[in-house]
Amino acid sequence: MASNLPPKGMRDFLPHSKKTREYVKSKIKDTYIRYGFSQIETSEIENIENMLQSDGGDNTKLIFKILKRGEKLDISNIDDDYEENQLADLALRFDLTLPLSRFYANNRNDLPQIFKAFQMGYVFRAERPQKGRYRAFMQCDIDIIGDDTNLAEAELLLTVYQALTDVGLKGHRIIINDRRILKSITVAAGFDEKDFEDVAITLDKLDKIGQENVDKELLSKGYTEESVAKLANLNEEIHEMGIERIKDFSPAGYENIKQIIDAISFANSDLEIGFDHSLVRGMGYYTSTIYEIKYDKYGHSIGGGGRYDNMIGKLSGVQTPACGVSIGYERLVDILSEENLEIDEKDKIALLYDSDNPLGEVLKESNNLRDKFNVSVFVKKKKLKKQLDRFKEEGFSGFKFFGADEEIRYL
Amino acid sequence: MASNLPPKGMRDFLPHSKKTREYVKSKIKDTYIRYGFSQIETSEIENIENMLQSDGGDNTKLIFKILKRGEKLDISNIDDDYEENQLADLALRFDLTLPLSRFYANNRNDLPQIFKAFQMGYVFRAERPQKGRYRAFMQCDIDIIGDDTNLAEAELLLTVYQALTDVGLKGHRIIINDRRILKSITVAAGFDEKDFEDVAITLDKLDKIGQENVDKELLSKGYTEESVAKLANLNEEIHEMGIERIKDFSPAGYENIKQIIDAISFANSDLEIGFDHSLVRGMGYYTSTIYEIKYDKYGHSIGGGGRYDNMIGKLSGVQTPACGVSIGYERLVDILSEENLEIDEKDKIALLYDSDNPLGEVLKESNNLRDKFNVSVFVKKKKLKKQLDRFKEEGFSGFKFFGADEEIRYL
Repeated sequence: MASNLPPKGMRDFLPHSKKTREYVKSKIKDTYIRYGFSQIETSEIENIENMLQSDGGDNTKLIFKILKRGEKLDISNIDDDYEENQLADLALRFDLTLPLSRFYANNRNDLPQIFKAFQMGYVFRAERPQKGRYRAFMQCDIDIIGDDTNLAEAELLLTVYQALTDVGLKGHRIIINDRRILKSITVAAGFDEKDFEDVAITLDKLDKIGQENVDKELLSKGYTEESVAKLANLNEEIHEMGIERIKDFSPAGYENIKQIIDAISFANSDLEIGFDHSLVRGMGYYTSTIYEIKYDKYGHSIGGGGRYDNMIGKLSGVQTPACGVSIGYERLVDILSEENLEIDEKDKIALLYDSDNPLGEVLKESNNLRDKFNVSVFVKKKKLKKQLDRFKEEGFSGFKFFGADEEIRYL
Repeated sequence: MASNLPPKGMRDFLPHSKKTREYVKSKIKDTYIRYGFSQIETSEIENIENMLQSDGGDNTKLIFKILKRGEKLDISNIDDDYEENQLADLALRFDLTLPLSRFYANNRNDLPQIFKAFQMGYVFRAERPQKGRYRAFMQCDIDIIGDDTNLAEAELLLTVYQALTDVGLKGHRIIINDRRILKSITVAAGFDEKDFEDVAITLDKLDKIGQENVDKELLSKGYTEESVAKLANLNEEIHEMGIERIKDFSPAGYENIKQIIDAISFANSDLEIGFDHSLVRGMGYYTSTIYEIKYDKYGHSIGGGGRYDNMIGKLSGVQTPACGVSIGYERLVDILSEENLEIDEKDKIALLYDSDNPLGEVLKESNNLRDKFNVSVFVKKKKLKKQLDRFKEEGFSGFKFFGADEEIRYL
């Protein structure tokens, strides 16, 4: 007999965890809508050529590919020049950003001039499964397309911060940086502008490996001792003096970050946000503002994003500013589950009847009870105590006997 | 440049249609929960061997197969004995019933003794795309596992009828039959019991091809003129006399159908349900009660199901009664969209500001407005009239100027 487990890295969800997942999704969704975002949905399956041509970086190595069907799958011609991709025409998406860009390019004439979109859906990556890492996982993205001002960043960050608050999280905070600041510091330290992306890849590891090892890695990449030392010094100074230190390096980046921080801290005085010069974010497609949502109890970030002004233009041929943020839904669900998230819901009640009671009347009473409760109907067992114990285990709050002139009896 | 359309038979959803889809899903979900069902989720991806070994009938020919990855994919050994399935280890599910059975077999010890489950999720079939038929489509199933009494059928049908009413449908009705009745009539007409499934396949076409062609097909299959004529006569009599005519043929079937009809018509006096001796339903796995939900304006059925007492036992090794019903979600959404379903929601409002206004204060005002409205913030354009016209087109109900001491102005 075949295994009844889901495939490796995939999951089923029992009622209790499904309830948590749905609750988190619906709270996030409510907040997104209140903040003026419109939900869209994109196909989970993409044409494989779109995905292979994308800027997806390492994700393009993790694609689940779908076998061609029927006559399209011509295996007889496979020879030494064979390429795996000749066998597949479709693939499962690995993120929501590429589908969004394709969607926008395809539908731009039917969409608002400034399009505030959100998506919640599964993405798939054939990663080596490990604790907390799945091969199918949900993403909850918001994006603003068509606004080149930092009103977009401000709205996105207010929205995502509030969504996390509304779902019950406490103590999350935002860190923010600007790729132009990173670049200007790197150049000021003596690095060549064309090396910025390469230097950034190493800087991105500061959190994990520390300044000393960052320096070592840069030196091993062949950069000069002088530049590496100067960069470390500058970073130290910025760490001490804060955002004012970078005013002269990158006036545009400075203004951008300062405006966003000032505006959203004023709009929501509970919101915690700070400039973090060490924030890099890996993806090469970010053009200026970048940010992450930190939850210190957890360590890792639970969301992030940035401005990507060039990506949609590549697909649509029309230069289009865009900016987004994604909540790490699976992490959020894990955190809230561990913190015993409380979900308001109606009591679950069992209506018990004797098998010789008229079933129609029993069902009618159950329908009436459904104004107030979530109700299931069961035949009363001879061993009533045992049956009631089981109901309690199964999550029922109470029960009632059919026809009895009484309130619910709570378990 | 590659196409920006989703793959053939797949769909993206713009905000307006996504809103309808979400509304329909949430109304159905609310009703399912009120009726005591618990939501579960199963993986969209299954191990391919589970799917190929299933009783899925024609659906097993429509499977989207996922290419093996990395070293697992050994193309060099492919020769004349090659089988397509050597290339794939995973597949996209083609229904929710097989995953449910696998899920139940895997988790039965953690589930209620009588398990009332619902699932809403995508299934995938590589059918030839045509109008109204998609390769990825949503199903909304409820199932009761572990109850061998027809209380299960009664609860399922009350629930699904109410779900359709709650979502705004009017004039739907249920037809019901019992496979045991069908079988007893067939045997009474002189067919061999072992030929029942084959005869049923032809009877299932009555709706589409008419009695005369049903007779022809049965004769062409080699059945005797006498049996075919007698079966047609019996069907005619049952058509005229109704359910009482089958009391003697199949007492168990008769009692079952009569109890269900009486009980649920009494419990919900608006509910329309009738015995229909011509209802067959194709799937061989149904063991007794079968039913469909009809919506006459539409012609086709918009849901259906039945009792399948043997299916879970095959997977789990433990004989387990089960019964289910599925709503044709895509059809339902199509119908409700055509009938201009009205969705209650908060007004969508634009808050307009001058670019020299303090952004923090603007955003604070927008947050305050979000208690009552879904709000987006925009810079006021010089051509205000044009901007307001566009907002109206884009679905905004009204707008407000930042700081103005006034109510919302409706568009």
